[in-house]
Amino acid sequence: MSLVEKLQKRAAIKKFDPSKKISTEQLDQLQSAIQLAPSSLGLQSFKVIVVQDPETRAKLRAAGYNQAQITDASALFVFASLTTLDEAFGKKFIDLVADTRSVDRASLEGFEQMILGTLSSRTDDQKLAWSHKQTYIALGVLVSEAAELGIDAAPMEGFDAAQFDEILGLKEKGLTTSVIAAVGFRAEDDVYSKMIKVRRPKSELFIHV
Amino acid sequence: MSLVEKLQKRAAIKKFDPSKKISTEQLDQLQSAIQLAPSSLGLQSFKVIVVQDPETRAKLRAAGYNQAQITDASALFVFASLTTLDEAFGKKFIDLVADTRSVDRASLEGFEQMILGTLSSRTDDQKLAWSHKQTYIALGVLVSEAAELGIDAAPMEGFDAAQFDEILGLKEKGLTTSVIAAVGFRAEDDVYSKMIKVRRPKSELFIHV
Repeated sequence: MSLVEKLQKRAAIKKFDPSKKISTEQLDQLQSAIQLAPSSLGLQSFKVIVVQDPETRAKLRAAGYNQAQITDASALFVFASLTTLDEAFGKKFIDLVADTRSVDRASLEGFEQMILGTLSSRTDDQKLAWSHKQTYIALGVLVSEAAELGIDAAPMEGFDAAQFDEILGLKEKGLTTSVIAAVGFRAEDDVYSKMIKVRRPKSELFIHV
Repeated sequence: MSLVEKLQKRAAIKKFDPSKKISTEQLDQLQSAIQLAPSSLGLQSFKVIVVQDPETRAKLRAAGYNQAQITDASALFVFASLTTLDEAFGKKFIDLVADTRSVDRASLEGFEQMILGTLSSRTDDQKLAWSHKQTYIALGVLVSEAAELGIDAAPMEGFDAAQFDEILGLKEKGLTTSVIAAVGFRAEDDVYSKMIKVRRPKSELFIHV
C-alpha cells in the first residue's frame, strides 16, 4: 500500500483502545521521524514530551477538555517550543553542526553569523510563533510515519497550553506547549474513523501556474 | 527502505537539476498527500499554488533572495493561507461535510455551531496564524511523501511574502503566502546533500514522562 493510500485510511481517532500499546520499536521509529523532520535553518527549536504515565495523563486530560484520547491512546506526544532562542542557543547549535560534521568551528563562521543575525532580528514573540510552526512540520511528519506503520495519530489543538506547561513543568525547562498528538490504536467501535473522510477537491485546493 | 530511512536520505537541496522533472503522476501523488494532511477541525483553510511557469518563477526568485531552487526545481509549491475565515466560510465547510457524507445538513447542527463559534471567537490575526500553522502540517506531509517517492522537497522560509502575494495575485484570491517548498531532483553536484545530516540527539529532543 502506498503512503497516500495509508494516509487515506488514517483518521482523527476519538476513541482509542487503551489495551493496545505501541511497541518500543514503533515508538523509536516515530521518534526517528520527528527527529528527521526539517526545521527552519535546521535549528529544531523544540522538544517533544512523550507522556505515558497514567497519572500525568489524567491531569492533562482535565486540561484538555476531558478528551479521552489524552488518557486512552498508547502515548501522548506534546510538542513544545523553546522559549529562549538567544545567542547562546545559536552558538550551541553551531557547536552541534561542527561536532556532527567533524569540521573546524571557524569554517562555520558565515553560517554562525547568519544564524545569530536571524535570531537577533526577531522579537521573542516572533521567535515563539516561528518555533510553533516548526513543530507543525514535525507533527506532519509524525502523522505520515504513523500512517506508514499502521499506527493511529490524532493531532489535537483543543487544550489549555498554560495548564499543560504547568502540569509538565515546562516553564522551568524553557518550553511551552505548541500542539499535541494522541498516538496508539483505534478502538473497534470508534465512530469517526468509519465516516467518509472529508477533503476539499483538488480543483479547489490547488492552483496551477 | 522504510520511510525513516528515506527521511534520513532527504536533504534541503540547494542545487536542483533543472532538466529533471517530476512526472504528472508524481505531482498528483504529492498533491494527494497534501490533500490528505490533517488540519484543525478539518477546515483546510489554505490553498497550494503549484508554480511551474518559468516567467513567474523568475519573478518569485527575485522575491526570494535570488535562491536558485525557486527556478531550478521541477515545481515550486507555495502554501497560502485564506485571509477570511468568516461565517460564510464555516457554513460552506459544513456544506462540504454534508455533501461528502450524504448526510442531512441538520444532523450537523452541533458541529456547525462549534465551527462557527471557534471562528467567531478568534481575531483575524489569530485565525491567520492558525491557518499558517496548518500549512506547516501539510508541508510536513509533503516532505514525507516526497521522501517516500524519492523526490527532493526543500522547504523554504526565506522569501518576501508580500512580494509573493503580489506576483501570484493572491490578495485578490483572499490568500497570503505562508511557506514554500521547491520540489524536484537534486543536481549531482549539490553540495549540501553530501554533508552529514545534523540533528539533535534523541536524548535532547525527547523527554519521557
